[in-house]
Amino acid sequence: MANEHLIDDCIFCKIIRGEIPSHKIAETDKAYAFLDINPISEGHVLVIPKYHGEFFHQIPDDYLVDILPLARKVALASGLDEGQYNLLQNNGPMAHQVVPHVHFHIIPKPNKEEGLIVGWPMKTANQDSLKGTLTRIKEKL
Amino acid sequence: MANEHLIDDCIFCKIIRGEIPSHKIAETDKAYAFLDINPISEGHVLVIPKYHGEFFHQIPDDYLVDILPLARKVALASGLDEGQYNLLQNNGPMAHQVVPHVHFHIIPKPNKEEGLIVGWPMKTANQDSLKGTLTRIKEKL
Repeated sequence: MANEHLIDDCIFCKIIRGEIPSHKIAETDKAYAFLDINPISEGHVLVIPKYHGEFFHQIPDDYLVDILPLARKVALASGLDEGQYNLLQNNGPMAHQVVPHVHFHIIPKPNKEEGLIVGWPMKTANQDSLKGTLTRIKEKL
Repeated sequence: MANEHLIDDCIFCKIIRGEIPSHKIAETDKAYAFLDINPISEGHVLVIPKYHGEFFHQIPDDYLVDILPLARKVALASGLDEGQYNLLQNNGPMAHQVVPHVHFHIIPKPNKEEGLIVGWPMKTANQDSLKGTLTRIKEKL
Protein backbone atom coordinates (compact mmCIF):
# COMPACT_ATOMS: atom_id res chain seq x y z
CA MET A 1 0.00 0.00 0.00
CA ALA A 2 1.56 3.26 -1.11
CA ASN A 3 0.45 6.32 0.84
CA GLU A 4 2.57 8.95 -0.89
CA HIS A 5 -0.52 10.94 -1.86
CA LEU A 6 -1.75 11.43 1.70
CA ILE A 7 -1.02 14.52 3.79
CA ASP A 8 -0.27 14.99 7.49
CA ASP A 9 -3.01 17.39 8.47
CA CYS A 10 -6.16 15.53 7.38
CA ILE A 11 -8.39 13.35 9.54
CA PHE A 12 -9.19 10.93 6.70
CA CYS A 13 -5.53 10.61 5.66
CA LYS A 14 -4.80 9.75 9.30
CA ILE A 15 -7.56 7.13 9.29
CA ILE A 16 -6.11 5.54 6.14
CA ARG A 17 -2.65 5.44 7.74
CA GLY A 18 -4.12 3.93 10.92
CA GLU A 19 -3.09 6.91 13.07
CA ILE A 20 -6.71 7.44 14.07
CA PRO A 21 -8.91 4.40 14.71
CA SER A 22 -11.86 3.71 12.40
CA HIS A 23 -14.50 1.05 11.91
CA LYS A 24 -12.81 -0.27 8.78
CA ILE A 25 -14.85 -2.51 6.51
CA ALA A 26 -12.52 -3.12 3.58
CA GLU A 27 -9.83 -1.49 1.47
CA THR A 28 -8.02 -1.77 -1.83
CA ASP A 29 -4.64 -0.33 -2.79
CA LYS A 30 -6.35 2.93 -3.67
CA ALA A 31 -9.58 3.16 -1.64
CA TYR A 32 -10.75 2.64 1.95
CA ALA A 33 -14.26 1.92 3.33
CA PHE A 34 -15.34 2.53 6.92
CA LEU A 35 -18.39 3.38 8.98
CA ASP A 36 -19.42 7.02 9.25
CA ILE A 37 -19.10 7.78 12.96
CA ASN A 38 -22.13 10.08 12.75
CA PRO A 39 -24.55 7.91 10.77
CA ILE A 40 -27.85 9.29 9.50
CA SER A 41 -29.08 5.69 9.19
CA GLU A 42 -27.77 2.35 10.39
CA GLY A 43 -25.07 1.13 7.98
CA HIS A 44 -23.97 4.60 6.80
CA VAL A 45 -20.55 4.01 5.21
CA LEU A 46 -17.86 6.23 3.69
CA VAL A 47 -15.63 5.19 0.79
CA ILE A 48 -12.59 7.42 0.29
CA PRO A 49 -9.64 7.50 -2.10
CA LYS A 50 -6.15 6.97 -0.70
CA TYR A 51 -5.25 10.24 -2.36
CA HIS A 52 -5.71 13.51 -0.59
CA GLY A 53 -7.93 15.88 -2.51
CA GLU A 54 -10.66 18.15 -1.24
CA PHE A 55 -12.83 17.86 -4.34
CA PHE A 56 -13.90 15.06 -6.66
CA HIS A 57 -12.40 16.63 -9.79
CA GLN A 58 -8.95 16.65 -8.12
CA ILE A 59 -8.75 12.85 -7.77
CA PRO A 60 -6.84 11.04 -10.55
CA ASP A 61 -8.71 8.45 -12.57
CA ASP A 62 -6.57 5.55 -11.32
CA TYR A 63 -7.86 6.27 -7.80
CA LEU A 64 -11.43 6.95 -8.90
CA VAL A 65 -11.78 3.56 -10.58
CA ASP A 66 -11.46 1.76 -7.23
CA ILE A 67 -14.25 3.71 -5.52
CA LEU A 68 -17.43 2.29 -7.05
CA PRO A 69 -16.43 -1.41 -7.10
CA LEU A 70 -15.52 -1.10 -3.40
CA ALA A 71 -18.80 0.71 -2.71
CA ARG A 72 -20.67 -2.06 -4.51
CA LYS A 73 -18.92 -4.73 -2.46
CA VAL A 74 -19.91 -2.88 0.71
CA ALA A 75 -23.50 -2.37 -0.49
CA LEU A 76 -23.90 -6.10 -1.14
CA ALA A 77 -22.32 -7.08 2.20
CA SER A 78 -24.60 -4.55 3.93
CA GLY A 79 -27.69 -6.20 2.48
CA LEU A 80 -28.60 -3.10 0.49
CA ASP A 81 -29.70 -5.33 -2.39
CA GLU A 82 -32.73 -5.91 -0.18
CA GLY A 83 -33.35 -2.24 0.53
CA GLN A 84 -33.11 1.31 -0.73
CA TYR A 85 -30.14 3.66 -0.48
CA ASN A 86 -28.31 6.70 -1.81
CA LEU A 87 -24.72 7.28 -2.92
CA LEU A 88 -23.68 10.88 -2.33
CA GLN A 89 -20.47 12.85 -2.73
CA ASN A 90 -20.46 16.53 -1.76
CA ASN A 91 -18.10 19.23 -3.00
CA GLY A 92 -17.98 22.47 -1.05
CA PRO A 93 -19.60 23.66 2.19
CA MET A 94 -22.77 24.91 0.47
CA ALA A 95 -23.08 21.40 -1.06
CA HIS A 96 -22.92 19.95 2.49
CA GLN A 97 -19.25 18.88 2.51
CA VAL A 98 -17.69 18.93 5.98
CA VAL A 99 -14.39 17.01 5.85
CA PRO A 100 -12.07 18.36 3.11
CA HIS A 101 -11.03 14.93 1.76
CA VAL A 102 -13.23 13.42 -0.96
CA HIS A 103 -15.70 10.90 0.48
CA PHE A 104 -18.57 8.95 -1.02
CA HIS A 105 -21.44 8.30 1.38
CA ILE A 106 -23.38 5.04 1.11
CA ILE A 107 -26.57 5.86 3.02
CA PRO A 108 -29.28 3.24 3.61
CA LYS A 109 -32.84 4.62 3.30
CA PRO A 110 -34.85 2.38 5.64
CA ASN A 111 -37.78 4.80 5.97
CA LYS A 112 -38.75 8.38 5.21
CA GLU A 113 -37.34 9.79 8.44
CA GLU A 114 -33.87 8.22 8.44
CA GLY A 115 -31.11 8.39 5.83
CA LEU A 116 -30.71 11.10 3.21
CA ILE A 117 -33.53 13.61 2.82
CA VAL A 118 -33.48 14.74 -0.80
CA GLY A 119 -34.81 18.20 -1.70
CA TRP A 120 -35.34 18.62 -5.43
CA PRO A 121 -36.11 22.21 -6.56
CA MET A 122 -37.34 21.30 -10.04
CA LYS A 123 -37.36 23.98 -12.71
CA THR A 124 -39.30 24.19 -15.91
CA ALA A 125 -37.23 22.60 -18.68
CA ASN A 126 -36.20 25.05 -21.37
CA GLN A 127 -34.87 23.60 -24.62
CA ASP A 128 -32.92 26.73 -25.58
CA SER A 129 -31.28 26.83 -22.19
CA LEU A 130 -30.29 23.14 -22.46
CA LYS A 131 -28.71 23.74 -25.86
CA GLY A 132 -26.70 26.64 -24.48
CA THR A 133 -25.49 24.51 -21.59
CA LEU A 134 -24.53 21.67 -23.92
CA THR A 135 -22.52 24.02 -26.14
CA ARG A 136 -20.76 25.53 -23.14
CA ILE A 137 -19.68 22.13 -21.76
CA LYS A 138 -18.71 20.55 -25.08
CA GLU A 139 -16.47 23.48 -25.98
CA LYS A 140 -14.28 22.63 -22.98
CA LEU A 141 -14.27 18.84 -23.34
CA MET B 1 -19.70 -0.09 -28.85
CA ALA B 2 -21.45 -3.22 -27.62
CA ASN B 3 -25.01 -2.74 -26.43
CA GLU B 4 -25.87 -6.34 -25.57
CA HIS B 5 -26.65 -5.40 -21.97
CA LEU B 6 -29.37 -2.90 -22.85
CA ILE B 7 -33.07 -3.72 -22.91
CA ASP B 8 -35.90 -2.62 -25.18
CA ASP B 9 -38.29 -1.13 -22.67
CA CYS B 10 -36.11 1.48 -20.92
CA ILE B 11 -35.88 5.18 -21.73
CA PHE B 12 -32.17 5.38 -20.85
CA CYS B 13 -31.32 2.27 -22.90
CA LYS B 14 -33.11 3.95 -25.81
CA ILE B 15 -31.10 7.14 -25.29
CA ILE B 16 -27.84 5.14 -25.34
CA ARG B 17 -28.90 3.43 -28.58
CA GLY B 18 -29.88 6.81 -30.08
CA GLU B 19 -33.53 5.83 -30.46
CA ILE B 20 -34.54 8.80 -28.30
CA PRO B 21 -32.64 12.09 -28.72
CA SER B 22 -30.55 13.40 -25.85
CA HIS B 23 -28.18 16.27 -25.16
CA LYS B 24 -25.14 14.00 -25.26
CA ILE B 25 -21.92 15.36 -23.79
CA ALA B 26 -19.55 12.40 -24.06
CA GLU B 27 -19.41 8.62 -23.88
CA THR B 28 -17.04 5.72 -23.42
CA ASP B 29 -17.55 2.09 -24.42
CA LYS B 30 -19.37 1.51 -21.13
CA ALA B 31 -20.81 4.83 -19.99
CA TYR B 32 -22.80 7.75 -21.44
CA ALA B 33 -23.12 11.36 -20.20
CA PHE B 34 -25.94 13.73 -21.13
CA LEU B 35 -27.90 16.69 -19.78
CA ASP B 36 -30.76 16.00 -17.40
CA ILE B 37 -33.79 17.29 -19.27
CA ASN B 38 -35.32 18.46 -15.96
CA PRO B 39 -32.32 20.20 -14.36
CA ILE B 40 -32.43 21.41 -10.78
CA SER B 41 -29.53 23.74 -11.59
CA GLU B 42 -27.87 24.83 -14.82
CA GLY B 43 -25.41 22.13 -15.94
CA HIS B 44 -27.22 19.20 -14.26
CA VAL B 45 -25.79 16.09 -15.97
CA LEU B 46 -26.49 12.36 -15.82
CA VAL B 47 -23.82 9.68 -16.25
CA ILE B 48 -25.21 6.20 -16.88
CA PRO B 49 -23.73 2.75 -17.49
CA LYS B 50 -24.35 1.07 -20.86
CA TYR B 51 -25.69 -1.85 -18.90
CA HIS B 52 -29.30 -2.04 -17.90
CA GLY B 53 -29.74 -2.37 -14.17
CA GLU B 54 -32.21 -0.69 -11.88
CA PHE B 55 -29.88 -0.52 -8.89
CA PHE B 56 -26.22 0.33 -8.33
CA HIS B 57 -25.34 -3.07 -6.83
CA GLN B 58 -26.53 -4.79 -10.04
CA ILE B 59 -23.95 -3.11 -12.29
CA PRO B 60 -20.78 -5.16 -12.95
CA ASP B 61 -17.46 -3.65 -11.93
CA ASP B 62 -16.19 -3.36 -15.50
CA TYR B 63 -19.05 -0.94 -16.21
CA LEU B 64 -18.74 0.88 -12.87
CA VAL B 65 -15.09 1.76 -13.46
CA ASP B 66 -16.00 3.99 -16.40
CA ILE B 67 -18.53 6.10 -14.48
CA LEU B 68 -16.39 8.32 -12.24
CA PRO B 69 -13.63 9.13 -14.76
CA LEU B 70 -16.34 10.20 -17.22
CA ALA B 71 -18.09 12.20 -14.48
CA ARG B 72 -14.79 13.91 -13.66
CA LYS B 73 -14.20 14.79 -17.30
CA VAL B 74 -17.68 16.33 -17.44
CA ALA B 75 -17.18 18.17 -14.13
CA LEU B 76 -13.97 19.77 -15.40
CA ALA B 77 -15.51 20.71 -18.77
CA SER B 78 -18.50 22.17 -16.91
CA GLY B 79 -16.24 24.46 -14.91
CA LEU B 80 -17.19 22.78 -11.62
CA ASP B 81 -13.59 23.11 -10.46
CA GLU B 82 -14.57 26.75 -9.94
CA GLY B 83 -17.76 25.97 -8.06
CA GLN B 84 -19.56 23.61 -5.70
CA TYR B 85 -21.54 20.50 -6.66
CA ASN B 86 -22.96 17.13 -5.61
CA LEU B 87 -22.71 13.65 -7.10
CA LEU B 88 -25.82 11.62 -6.29
CA GLN B 89 -27.08 8.17 -7.22
CA ASN B 90 -30.47 7.06 -5.89
CA ASN B 91 -31.70 3.49 -5.40
CA GLY B 92 -35.42 2.98 -4.91
CA PRO B 93 -38.42 5.32 -5.01
CA MET B 94 -38.14 6.26 -1.31
CA ALA B 95 -34.52 7.24 -2.05
CA HIS B 96 -35.80 9.55 -4.83
CA GLN B 97 -35.09 7.30 -7.83
CA VAL B 98 -37.47 7.89 -10.74
CA VAL B 99 -36.02 6.19 -13.85
CA PRO B 100 -35.24 2.49 -13.22
CA HIS B 101 -31.81 2.51 -14.92
CA VAL B 102 -28.83 3.43 -12.72
CA HIS B 103 -27.86 7.09 -13.14
CA PHE B 104 -25.35 9.31 -11.40
CA HIS B 105 -26.41 12.95 -11.11
CA ILE B 106 -23.77 15.68 -11.32
CA ILE B 107 -25.58 18.66 -9.82
CA PRO B 108 -23.99 22.13 -9.67
CA LYS B 109 -24.72 24.00 -6.43
CA PRO B 110 -24.58 27.65 -7.49
CA ASN B 111 -26.54 28.97 -4.49
CA LYS B 112 -28.69 27.75 -1.60
CA GLU B 113 -31.93 27.73 -3.59
CA GLU B 114 -30.83 25.82 -6.71
CA GLY B 115 -29.26 22.37 -7.04
CA LEU B 116 -29.55 19.57 -4.51
CA ILE B 117 -31.08 20.38 -1.15
CA VAL B 118 -29.50 18.01 1.37
CA GLY B 119 -31.46 17.04 4.49
CA TRP B 120 -29.27 15.37 7.11
CA PRO B 121 -31.16 13.82 10.04
CA MET B 122 -28.15 13.37 12.32
CA LYS B 123 -28.37 10.86 15.13
CA THR B 124 -26.35 10.60 18.29
CA ALA B 125 -23.35 8.37 17.63
CA ASN B 126 -23.40 5.14 19.63
CA GLN B 127 -20.19 3.13 19.79
CA ASP B 128 -21.93 -0.17 20.59
CA SER B 129 -24.30 0.28 17.70
CA LEU B 130 -21.39 1.02 15.32
CA LYS B 131 -19.59 -2.15 16.43
CA GLY B 132 -22.72 -4.20 15.81
CA THR B 133 -23.07 -2.72 12.33
CA LEU B 134 -19.41 -3.38 11.53
CA THR B 135 -19.71 -7.02 12.58
CA ARG B 136 -22.88 -7.47 10.52
CA ILE B 137 -21.30 -6.10 7.35
CA LYS B 138 -17.93 -7.81 7.70
CA GLU B 139 -19.55 -11.22 8.18
CA LYS B 140 -20.95 -10.97 4.66
CA LEU B 141 -17.91 -9.49 2.94
